[in-house]
Amino acid sequence: MMKILRIDMGTLRVTEVDAEKYQRLGGRALTSRIVHDEVPPTAHPLGPYNKLIFANGLLTGSGASSTDRYSIGAKSPLTGGIKESNAGGISGLKLGRLGIRALIFEGVREDFKIIYISKDKISFDDASPILGKDLSEATKWLREKYGKNIAVWLIGVAGEQKMNLAAIAGQDKEGYPTRFNGRGGLGAVAGSKGIKAIVLDDSGIDRSKPKDKDRFRQAMKQYHTWLMETPGTAKIFPELGTSALVRTTNSLGALPTRNFSTGSFEKYEQISGETLRETIIERSGEGSPTHACMPGCIIRCSNVFVDKAGKRVTSPLEYENIGLLGSNLGIGNLDDIAEINRLCNEYGIDTIETGGALGVLMSQNIISFGDVGGVIQALQEIKKGGFLGKIIGGGAEIVGKLYGAYRVPTVKGQSMPAYDPRAIKGLGVTYSTSPMGADHTAGQTVRAQIDHHSPIGQVKTSLEAQETAPIFDSTGLCFFSGGAIAGRWDLVADLITAYTGMQFSGEQLLQLGKETLRIEHEFNRMAGFTKAHDRLPEYFYHEINEASQTVFDVPQDEVEAIGVEGYGRSHHR
Amino acid sequence: MMKILRIDMGTLRVTEVDAEKYQRLGGRALTSRIVHDEVPPTAHPLGPYNKLIFANGLLTGSGASSTDRYSIGAKSPLTGGIKESNAGGISGLKLGRLGIRALIFEGVREDFKIIYISKDKISFDDASPILGKDLSEATKWLREKYGKNIAVWLIGVAGEQKMNLAAIAGQDKEGYPTRFNGRGGLGAVAGSKGIKAIVLDDSGIDRSKPKDKDRFRQAMKQYHTWLMETPGTAKIFPELGTSALVRTTNSLGALPTRNFSTGSFEKYEQISGETLRETIIERSGEGSPTHACMPGCIIRCSNVFVDKAGKRVTSPLEYENIGLLGSNLGIGNLDDIAEINRLCNEYGIDTIETGGALGVLMSQNIISFGDVGGVIQALQEIKKGGFLGKIIGGGAEIVGKLYGAYRVPTVKGQSMPAYDPRAIKGLGVTYSTSPMGADHTAGQTVRAQIDHHSPIGQVKTSLEAQETAPIFDSTGLCFFSGGAIAGRWDLVADLITAYTGMQFSGEQLLQLGKETLRIEHEFNRMAGFTKAHDRLPEYFYHEINEASQTVFDVPQDEVEAIGVEGYGRSHHR
Repeated sequence: MMKILRIDMGTLRVTEVDAEKYQRLGGRALTSRIVHDEVPPTAHPLGPYNKLIFANGLLTGSGASSTDRYSIGAKSPLTGGIKESNAGGISGLKLGRLGIRALIFEGVREDFKIIYISKDKISFDDASPILGKDLSEATKWLREKYGKNIAVWLIGVAGEQKMNLAAIAGQDKEGYPTRFNGRGGLGAVAGSKGIKAIVLDDSGIDRSKPKDKDRFRQAMKQYHTWLMETPGTAKIFPELGTSALVRTTNSLGALPTRNFSTGSFEKYEQISGETLRETIIERSGEGSPTHACMPGCIIRCSNVFVDKAGKRVTSPLEYENIGLLGSNLGIGNLDDIAEINRLCNEYGIDTIETGGALGVLMSQNIISFGDVGGVIQALQEIKKGGFLGKIIGGGAEIVGKLYGAYRVPTVKGQSMPAYDPRAIKGLGVTYSTSPMGADHTAGQTVRAQIDHHSPIGQVKTSLEAQETAPIFDSTGLCFFSGGAIAGRWDLVADLITAYTGMQFSGEQLLQLGKETLRIEHEFNRMAGFTKAHDRLPEYFYHEINEASQTVFDVPQDEVEAIGVEGYGRSHHR
Repeated sequence: MMKILRIDMGTLRVTEVDAEKYQRLGGRALTSRIVHDEVPPTAHPLGPYNKLIFANGLLTGSGASSTDRYSIGAKSPLTGGIKESNAGGISGLKLGRLGIRALIFEGVREDFKIIYISKDKISFDDASPILGKDLSEATKWLREKYGKNIAVWLIGVAGEQKMNLAAIAGQDKEGYPTRFNGRGGLGAVAGSKGIKAIVLDDSGIDRSKPKDKDRFRQAMKQYHTWLMETPGTAKIFPELGTSALVRTTNSLGALPTRNFSTGSFEKYEQISGETLRETIIERSGEGSPTHACMPGCIIRCSNVFVDKAGKRVTSPLEYENIGLLGSNLGIGNLDDIAEINRLCNEYGIDTIETGGALGVLMSQNIISFGDVGGVIQALQEIKKGGFLGKIIGGGAEIVGKLYGAYRVPTVKGQSMPAYDPRAIKGLGVTYSTSPMGADHTAGQTVRAQIDHHSPIGQVKTSLEAQETAPIFDSTGLCFFSGGAIAGRWDLVADLITAYTGMQFSGEQLLQLGKETLRIEHEFNRMAGFTKAHDRLPEYFYHEINEASQTVFDVPQDEVEAIGVEGYGRSHHR
């Protein structure tokens, strides 16, 4: 049985939780369950009653493609609601090898610790040497101190300052801290608990093995075949990564441009996935247009972006970053976007929230759209702890409040990802109703075969996406495997059954997804959310997106039926 | 019949509202009714769907003592809920002389206008000459341009910037813009609508006369007798003003000290009402320890504070300002507090919210407690529009979020007035449950004959205060007349009946109070408030106020019973 450890950061005491009741839960299902069960809904997100939970998916470490994702959950300082954010890389994998399903961090402390976990011990080491450092430097220091068998989770200067846009970074298989649990300010929660880094050392531990090897091998073979037969996972993601979406969303009028003021960008071709790929290939050197963040991943949507001399700049350069740090800021050059992205990664901040905050700031003429130098200087203020840094660190919603801005693209206090909800209305429904606030991963509809400009069918599409998202997030499966899995959950259940020895069915996984969503809404209701929060900013209903020639016009009563007051309480289909 | 005008600031069109249905409503009852009826609860507070309403009390202009107060209402950008803020001075009086009960401002605009209203015309004049100016200078300019028969409402540099702590200033009888509708960021709403100033010119208009002169004279005589017979209104207020409370709250352990970290201040005697009075008397010159903000006010709680040379510095220096800008910032010198107060007045910012914001900032060591120069420099950044100014301009709640602070003394986003709710628990109940957020005027309990440290009886005391507060706020009566009126509402009803010709009873006034509170809660429910918002910041329940040796321990279920979900829905007594 996998262990769950409870770590009180106030007293630095570690206890083992009776994990029996949680054995069938992983990832988001587990973090949300623990937040729901243990965190008072009205708790201060940065206070002693909030908890920060790291939890592996049920398949993490299994060796099947794209299954090593883990979740981090807490009450969010950004939204005030429940939050789960998941990422790939190898940190979850190493946690699993240590026999640990989840870590529950409690309490608060003022100084910062490195929590070192190996098969023999858990120690709390002084984090002073890496405070204030860039993430790459801090990780290098950790790898020198603790050896090459480690993987890390850590926060950057933003998390140390408990900023709303602070992320938690995990490590990719090459040792770079570039896989982010970006959303919801979870880095600030870590900061409030004095968690600078978690070092996971799997020295002396064998690879985990499936309980039923043959059954697992057979299921995995089927699953991998599907991945290889599906155009998205076999060709588009490996070639273009998520940036394939730039052309798509630009043509739909959904590419956020200059603080979501319109949905197509005159320089979109210069920042498209195709240009990205060509640029990296042409420059070669340390670059790679495709990259697996987890060992054995067939999808390989990540990449390594390089400068003209072929030197590594940042990894990965993804669609959301290009949209939020590029077109949304009026910046149409990949080198500029890469440099901004690099800074975000070094400081440990969410690229989406950062792009949202900068977009609002630019709409107020504090920095001009397209002013790359201005953006870089502003971001450096985050590291310096300057007043402008603090302002940006609050996220888009607060920037809007400080400047009296009307057009602030947030829901439940969280910046929208790179899809204008007037042009991809299913995502508008997801933004409105997800317990996570504006979050594409909570119910992505961009790939649905549907007229994205029409209000018809969007609620159903979003609901299905929202109900299945927790299955991915709880099993460790990357959402991008979804095209290949295509709803054939029995196979996923088979993988889990063979790997864990616990009997699962596809139907049970569907129930797990719905139950997870249900308790998340329940937590938010108790935390003070109502249907009044299940909506987009006012201007999306009244101001036309010129690129799509649409406003957001999905009937609000239909939207609310799947939101915090409606979900699980009405017949919403 | 008094007129109600609707002014669309987008188009600058003025229309007259059918005022029939509103005739029996004044002040807060009227502003809250119009907000409730006309503003979509989810409207963006700074957007085109919010409205800003100025409304006189039913007795405003009657000539009875302390009856010229008016209300300003809107959806608040600070709390996100309904807001009413009232003040004295003579601006409401002049509005009434113009035959106007209320002004409803709609729409938004980007440039700023002066709205000039006389008996013959309404004009919209360019406000450019007074933008960016201190309030005293702007008022002087307005009085030079429009003559001495005017009274003004205006916003300062904070309102122009649409800051959360922006107030709206009215004018006292000497022509100074020192009477503030401070709370809830109403100055930002005015700013969003391009309202820089409203100039009310009553040239050529006679004093208004009671409908039934004899009856009014008789009732007024009785009322004035009570005012003269009551120690508070006859002696304490005229002598010490509200600052009489410094000694009281300090001894209760309720005087906010260093960001509400404790409730008594070692230098309290240096900032007490007694010291204030002695200082002003000793310095003489332009100073006065007592001052009537409205003509004919018997209570005269205001004052004019002077420097050592006897030159006017600021007016009034009140208890809340001394508490929030003094002890709460670790500042124990009246001259320092007066200078800070003067700046707040010149910039048009709420002293309570400003003191709350600075207190949180000081708790984060950005400015040291007691550092007067640091405070003044920081405030000057508001005028300059610097980043620190923007941060403070967001109010205490946002300062707390930007700095990841845990101890942020706000409720529903609004700073607490100068009473630690652990030591005056009835006010803790009011802060928790009032639709206005943390606001002492919404249900003041400090003068109740009750053990303020005990949790017993506080809900009942707060509820009674909350239900009667709207009667004062709707009639134009100053709350400070309450000690003399002592619940004898029939006399107030008699005054209104005689003055307006509309039949009122004391019982009807009590109903008016309850109904006003009910619709305010209803608006807030629709705006997304739940019982989860009806509570104090977490630390007040867990961290002892050393001065009072208490935490806030009024049972939460009792508190919620009179809050947004409970009020009017349960038997809460």
